[in-house]
Amino acid sequence: MLIRIIYLSLDPYVRGRMNQAKSYAPSLEIGAVMVGGTVGKVVQSNHSGFVKGDIVEGMLGWQEYAISDGRGLRKIDPQVAPISTALGVLGMPGLTAYFGLLEVANPKPGETIVISGAAGAVGSVAGQIAKIKGCRVVGIAGSDAKINYLVGELGFDAAFNYRSVENYYEVLNEICPDGIDAYFDNVGGTITDAAFRLLKPKARVAICGQISQYNLEEPEMGPRLLLHLLVKQARAEGFLVFQFAERYPEALRQLTQWLKEGKLKYREDIVDGIGNAPSAFIAMLQGRNMGKQLVKLAVP
Amino acid sequence: MLIRIIYLSLDPYVRGRMNQAKSYAPSLEIGAVMVGGTVGKVVQSNHSGFVKGDIVEGMLGWQEYAISDGRGLRKIDPQVAPISTALGVLGMPGLTAYFGLLEVANPKPGETIVISGAAGAVGSVAGQIAKIKGCRVVGIAGSDAKINYLVGELGFDAAFNYRSVENYYEVLNEICPDGIDAYFDNVGGTITDAAFRLLKPKARVAICGQISQYNLEEPEMGPRLLLHLLVKQARAEGFLVFQFAERYPEALRQLTQWLKEGKLKYREDIVDGIGNAPSAFIAMLQGRNMGKQLVKLAVP
Repeated sequence: MLIRIIYLSLDPYVRGRMNQAKSYAPSLEIGAVMVGGTVGKVVQSNHSGFVKGDIVEGMLGWQEYAISDGRGLRKIDPQVAPISTALGVLGMPGLTAYFGLLEVANPKPGETIVISGAAGAVGSVAGQIAKIKGCRVVGIAGSDAKINYLVGELGFDAAFNYRSVENYYEVLNEICPDGIDAYFDNVGGTITDAAFRLLKPKARVAICGQISQYNLEEPEMGPRLLLHLLVKQARAEGFLVFQFAERYPEALRQLTQWLKEGKLKYREDIVDGIGNAPSAFIAMLQGRNMGKQLVKLAVP
Repeated sequence: MLIRIIYLSLDPYVRGRMNQAKSYAPSLEIGAVMVGGTVGKVVQSNHSGFVKGDIVEGMLGWQEYAISDGRGLRKIDPQVAPISTALGVLGMPGLTAYFGLLEVANPKPGETIVISGAAGAVGSVAGQIAKIKGCRVVGIAGSDAKINYLVGELGFDAAFNYRSVENYYEVLNEICPDGIDAYFDNVGGTITDAAFRLLKPKARVAICGQISQYNLEEPEMGPRLLLHLLVKQARAEGFLVFQFAERYPEALRQLTQWLKEGKLKYREDIVDGIGNAPSAFIAMLQGRNMGKQLVKLAVP
């Protein structure tokens, strides 16, 4: 079938595909279509499972039209929510937040949960789920507008702008005087150093992303962190959303329900035209987006 | 009761009590009796549960005689094994190896398990249990004599002397060409950096000790490691043997059985007299002991 792509998703993990280092997914070849999640409309179909006009979500990449044999595509019901949410709160970022928070960070009511990259597509959902689960939620983000959004709109208990703070540890220690029960990490680096120093006994660190490290040519040096895990009997665990693939339907049902109940809110940052994708991608890696970063390639 | 201490155990964790930093146990006060595991003989008893001549194990510290109300003491049967083993393979180090390996590193038959500090009281037991469980076991230790011991006597599949190697990663990569399924870490630092680069998907790191870091005045810098956990969906978990206290009897039964069957071997490094305890303790932190480090304070 031929698909007209309407929305292209820009996600931090794509940066990893631009390196030659061996990772969980192969590197992009020079000249290949850039990897990316998309939502589009079927223009023409010779596939028995899809008809013209169907809205589909899948990894069709940075292009305006795509040919697909249907593998890896999921049909989207535009009645449930705006179709762009299939790339955000009801898509890979929402699923990543759902499983990372509930299965890896494993928060209990009353616990203190800290989230870095808290205003991003994943962090903002993770924080709201932690609130639904009865936790005290602290966000770290990179602008005052994001902090206002987290506390004012999403119901985070506290948040701080790491760009306007000298000593992350001091600020975090003030906000979390009894320590951190679980840390949902999208960022890594010096922010994470501060969080590790405040881990409570039996704390969990869910390593979702390390965006501060993706653009480095050489591995960055930092204080060694494993002794914190030892003395606190704490655990740090990396995860990828794919490992929970069998449970996507359950998670999407729950996320959809929370969305309908008004318990999950989201924002989107949309630029127009594929020509703006590279600059928007770079801006997202620098944290200059506000909400899920999308590129609109056609009128929905 | 009055107890004549026969053996004093020297263990790396005691170094942590000499710092002021907040940890899982309070720091030692200057002038207090140094913390330490001991085995001794009851000389006189007003306690209904103990009689003169009983052999007991407990945390009685660096002293030749101790007064005890019996709390935290366990009776040792000298028929089962030499009483010194209550401080080693049938004591805290053996229990640490048992739970850390089986519950945290969680090895499966055929997997490759790497152990740092492999010739120590904990590492040597962890490696032998991993062999019992059908794993391929690789040890890292600090002398050729230790390497010969690990491979020649304990049945490790491979081992290397980190003091005679320039690039730990290259050597480990050569020995573990398919990567590492589980890493039992007693050492930390640059050895651990190399192991993290070789973790396989879903690998487990059991953080038992970080002896390379205990004597540092300032936290050491090293390459950031969390990205390895992320891309490998791997887990690093600190543990303390106390968290498994309810299961000590089960573990001691199993360790005793393996010892009787000849599946568990051990060595002891014994110095005489309490005056030699400080220098032996320092030597142990430098890895100059061979086997479980004990101080003999009286004729058994």
